[in-house]
Amino acid sequence: MSEDALVVFTPSGRRGHFPIGTPVLKAARALGVDIDSVCGGRGICGRCQIQVSEGSFSKHGIVSSAENLTAFNEVEARYKSKKSMRDERRLSCQALLEGNVVIDVPADSQVHRQVVRKRAEVRDIKLDPAIRLHYVEVEEPDMHKPTGDLERLRRALEDQWGLKELECDLRILQSLQKSLRDGKWKVTVAVHRAQVITAIWPGFHDRVFGLAVDVGSTTIAAHLCSLRTGEVVASSGIMNPQIRFGEDLMSRVSYAMMNPGGDKEMTQAVRDGLNVLVAEVCKEADILPSEILNAAFVGNPIMHHLLLGIDPTELGGAPFALTLNSGLTIWATEMGLEINEDARIYVLPCIAGHVGADTAGVILSETPYLSDDIVLVVDVGTNAELVLGNKDRLLAASSPTGPAFEGAQISCGQRAAPGAIERLRIDPDTLEPRYKVIGCDLWSNEDGFDQAIRRIGVTGICGSGVIEALGEMFLAGILVTDGTIDGAMAAKSPRIQADGRTFSYLIREGEPEIRITQNDVRAIQLAKAALYAGARLLMDHLEIDTVDRIVLAGAFGSHIDVKYAMILGMIPDCDLSKVASAGNAAGTGARIALLNQKARDEIEDVVRRVEKIETAVEPKFQAHFIEAMGLPHTTAPYPMLAAAVALPAPKKAGPAGDSASEDRAARRRRRRSEG
Amino acid sequence: MSEDALVVFTPSGRRGHFPIGTPVLKAARALGVDIDSVCGGRGICGRCQIQVSEGSFSKHGIVSSAENLTAFNEVEARYKSKKSMRDERRLSCQALLEGNVVIDVPADSQVHRQVVRKRAEVRDIKLDPAIRLHYVEVEEPDMHKPTGDLERLRRALEDQWGLKELECDLRILQSLQKSLRDGKWKVTVAVHRAQVITAIWPGFHDRVFGLAVDVGSTTIAAHLCSLRTGEVVASSGIMNPQIRFGEDLMSRVSYAMMNPGGDKEMTQAVRDGLNVLVAEVCKEADILPSEILNAAFVGNPIMHHLLLGIDPTELGGAPFALTLNSGLTIWATEMGLEINEDARIYVLPCIAGHVGADTAGVILSETPYLSDDIVLVVDVGTNAELVLGNKDRLLAASSPTGPAFEGAQISCGQRAAPGAIERLRIDPDTLEPRYKVIGCDLWSNEDGFDQAIRRIGVTGICGSGVIEALGEMFLAGILVTDGTIDGAMAAKSPRIQADGRTFSYLIREGEPEIRITQNDVRAIQLAKAALYAGARLLMDHLEIDTVDRIVLAGAFGSHIDVKYAMILGMIPDCDLSKVASAGNAAGTGARIALLNQKARDEIEDVVRRVEKIETAVEPKFQAHFIEAMGLPHTTAPYPMLAAAVALPAPKKAGPAGDSASEDRAARRRRRRSEG
Repeated sequence: MSEDALVVFTPSGRRGHFPIGTPVLKAARALGVDIDSVCGGRGICGRCQIQVSEGSFSKHGIVSSAENLTAFNEVEARYKSKKSMRDERRLSCQALLEGNVVIDVPADSQVHRQVVRKRAEVRDIKLDPAIRLHYVEVEEPDMHKPTGDLERLRRALEDQWGLKELECDLRILQSLQKSLRDGKWKVTVAVHRAQVITAIWPGFHDRVFGLAVDVGSTTIAAHLCSLRTGEVVASSGIMNPQIRFGEDLMSRVSYAMMNPGGDKEMTQAVRDGLNVLVAEVCKEADILPSEILNAAFVGNPIMHHLLLGIDPTELGGAPFALTLNSGLTIWATEMGLEINEDARIYVLPCIAGHVGADTAGVILSETPYLSDDIVLVVDVGTNAELVLGNKDRLLAASSPTGPAFEGAQISCGQRAAPGAIERLRIDPDTLEPRYKVIGCDLWSNEDGFDQAIRRIGVTGICGSGVIEALGEMFLAGILVTDGTIDGAMAAKSPRIQADGRTFSYLIREGEPEIRITQNDVRAIQLAKAALYAGARLLMDHLEIDTVDRIVLAGAFGSHIDVKYAMILGMIPDCDLSKVASAGNAAGTGARIALLNQKARDEIEDVVRRVEKIETAVEPKFQAHFIEAMGLPHTTAPYPMLAAAVALPAPKKAGPAGDSASEDRAARRRRRRSEG
Repeated sequence: MSEDALVVFTPSGRRGHFPIGTPVLKAARALGVDIDSVCGGRGICGRCQIQVSEGSFSKHGIVSSAENLTAFNEVEARYKSKKSMRDERRLSCQALLEGNVVIDVPADSQVHRQVVRKRAEVRDIKLDPAIRLHYVEVEEPDMHKPTGDLERLRRALEDQWGLKELECDLRILQSLQKSLRDGKWKVTVAVHRAQVITAIWPGFHDRVFGLAVDVGSTTIAAHLCSLRTGEVVASSGIMNPQIRFGEDLMSRVSYAMMNPGGDKEMTQAVRDGLNVLVAEVCKEADILPSEILNAAFVGNPIMHHLLLGIDPTELGGAPFALTLNSGLTIWATEMGLEINEDARIYVLPCIAGHVGADTAGVILSETPYLSDDIVLVVDVGTNAELVLGNKDRLLAASSPTGPAFEGAQISCGQRAAPGAIERLRIDPDTLEPRYKVIGCDLWSNEDGFDQAIRRIGVTGICGSGVIEALGEMFLAGILVTDGTIDGAMAAKSPRIQADGRTFSYLIREGEPEIRITQNDVRAIQLAKAALYAGARLLMDHLEIDTVDRIVLAGAFGSHIDVKYAMILGMIPDCDLSKVASAGNAAGTGARIALLNQKARDEIEDVVRRVEKIETAVEPKFQAHFIEAMGLPHTTAPYPMLAAAVALPAPKKAGPAGDSASEDRAARRRRRRSEG
């Protein structure tokens, strides 16, 4: 025992006795402590840095001192002179135990370090990429034992890294002999999922990148990540070039149906766009596209199919059959993606014909399947995808909200761009509005506003602005429970103006004039009723009447004020403090799948278990839809909302209300179910 | 028991009792009897035909009658009307047991039927291709259970064929939905090695082909095989287009070394040639290239590397390191082979830097690793590959014979083409020759010979002709033991003519004049001594002095008369009846690997176990080489040859012999070891 040293690793708390002279890295490995290494203990990579905690640790029974390790050696000195290392740090592969020590493994020395996410309510990403780099020294060829270079490389990878029966891409074989000789029989290889050698560099190599992509029908967003640190090193987004074939999903499916080869055109368009995006992020991060060795993709079912070169026609009509609903790993070349030719691309699984890999990404990001609480996750886009449940049971559905939330069917609607009204308040006494436009920090009633917006103008109202306008109109009594703009209020303010048989609310005079019409309200009502009805249907299946938490995902969900979303009854009643925006959770899901290979298995397993509800064939959906037309709801109480917000008493409209809403809703539903 | 029927299957002899009403196919499956089926018992494919043996079988205790099966049914009638079936045949999936029967399973109904090879000494090929076709009925999609088409196809393949966790190529996914709907949810898929779906057809599909290719440095030969029957449906060969970069292997390696990108030019050349060959065999068999779903390739190490797009430079010098020495499966697209894009190509393993996948093919064809006898397998080309051993131990080496056997260093040498002398006899009394030329069935001393050859002429002497000429010259005493053309014989015949310091033997006057010069003899002596020395070296390692059997493989080995090969001492002494020609055994090996997937695992296992002997680093090789210069050998006795052929007594040459041979041999060896 006198020849043993006691070593305690923090933060893991793992401890053990080892013979004097044992390298710290070896002791850590023996105890299962997570310390990184690419070079396999040769003092080259510097990933295995540790730090001795000095002092007396009564809880461990150790007086720990840096002197209880062997002195800083030449290998460390060489590393430090080349790469810089903090004075108190040591390379754990070089420092040998000479006595008892408490050793701290800093986060940046851990293989499975956490990539910290900004939101408190979600878990951090544990770094465990599908691509790992391994530095190896390979035996030289010998005429007396004529094995191939590949077989000797394989043996080295097995002996030095425990990697067995690795396959090897043909392109790697084509460069293998040169790489081995250029590197003087020392090379670094990239191994995909501990199965295939997909890259090789002579000598020591330490850089490798991955790409996480969310292919939306409107925008495509990409994050370039270091697979070493997990950090996002560049991000970019472009409009989806498929827009020229159709603004929304169904018009693109129609294009494929009506035009022979139309699906191929759209596939080419999105792939071309992706390559523009790749070039952009590579330029921003100053790396070569060939340094990207892995990618993860999410997208709704139609984007998913077109991305993979699959005709989406079947998704355009019942029974909305997916080509596949499992995850898929293909080569970059199979998708024509101009990154490393041997890079592998992982595409997350779709869930159902209307619930895609983007929703799988949202689920992976928001982890309702790990929650004790019942969570409702709503991803609002052209369709709204809904996920409801907890660790015991998870349901998913899509609701046909249409594009109203994106401003498409709103008379003064526009994209969220400079000049668009994004926030709005109405004085309940005077019914006068004040608003903010994108590109200006002032409210419209503040001094200097007119001057500040002279250049950008006030051009329209974006999705979040519409939601706030309707919410405020409702709170001010301009809108009544059934969604009618109350003509009786025209007596109170000249902004309530007759508009044929109905009324509208004038927000701003001038060019363009901006107002909310009765048709605008009806469009939002139809959309929000579909959204609510979908959520309610899932709640029926789960036999619950309230949800514990709500997460709004997607660009739209991130920009709206959750209070107004609830005032309009887009979502069920809930404690407002338990309603959060998740931002681009689908994209985050792609990033998680990129950085953590086990997350791929995890989401595929979850997706298999998710219960898929098809709203179009559920008779109750129609009833829920009709009842959800009211503000916030025709029949359901919103006690939690009422406790937080002074809701007006239910009332009916004065003269000139309309009753078209139910007719239109019925027409809409009929169209869908005939789809 | 009274409700059971006893059924005995022949030829397997398997027997069992089954309830009345059991389909014969089901009974066969339960007993492990090998009956084919593509359609899974639906009466479509007709592969499961059987025949009832009529009569009393006392050995089985059965009175068997066709009446003990249910009557010929509609499904069978429909099959018979469409495809023709012999009257006594039944579809075993349709015929149900009604009483005791003896059932014969004809060879063409067996999955693992034998593909019969013509030579008695080799085993037949058991048909078990890497690609199998499976007809399945797939569940239609259902909005209530939104699984992907792929997942339902997978389930069908698992339920109906026991195939689990199949992967699927992206191109198949791209056509999956259309195929399923075109086939009304009935499709046939091709599955590669029970792992990946690589093709799909709507409805029932019954044709699938494979390609076996031997890439030689001079010629490329391809066999197109039906993967259903194992039969060769077309064969073709072309000159290797790489010849324009160099006649022999080393000149091609030099071209790669001296010309940047030269390896890529040669890769492109051979691949272009292969595509010409593919087009030829497809045309001959009247099939589409896309119907070829699998291929197997053999070739020497340099051809192997160039085929795969690997620079062969390392194979041009010590330590002659291969890029890989295991088998490799790649996609047709990775090799640019214009067959089905999702076809997989299997390339057999190389053994060592000079012993390639062609030798692996020879081993697979000749199976010395299964032999009780000690077998020497010699594949003579530019290099000679040697394999020696039996089921206990197997050794391999290559010997640097040079191109003399191919006629390249022979003064009047030429390829085996019309006009070339291929056989020759010398009258021991008159020393007059008679010969046959390719393209003419008459011997030169027969009536009408001159007229018969008027059009083709007598243009030179090919490899096998040279061997016979030298052997006959030796038997006639023109050549003495040390290889000198005996000037003293000039007194006996004017055909022995002085030629500077040495003598030559005139075969034919005219234009061109055809003679064997002393240099020709020396070239053959060097080649045959290298061959013998290699064999002798392997015998040393095995500690044996004689071999039980010899197999001559390769085009040259097939054309020469084994008696003359032994008279010249190319091969060790052996019972002449135990020396056989195997033809293009390398190509046969490729065909075996194509038709039997387990053969791939088998040869990879054998190759790993083969002991590789590098002649260049074995000191004894040089000694063996020098001693093997004599005819048949300077020191070794050839008792078995002497018993079969009247060998002349050893003698020395008269005037004007030369002694340059040893000097040249030494030079040659020096060059090689400096390589």
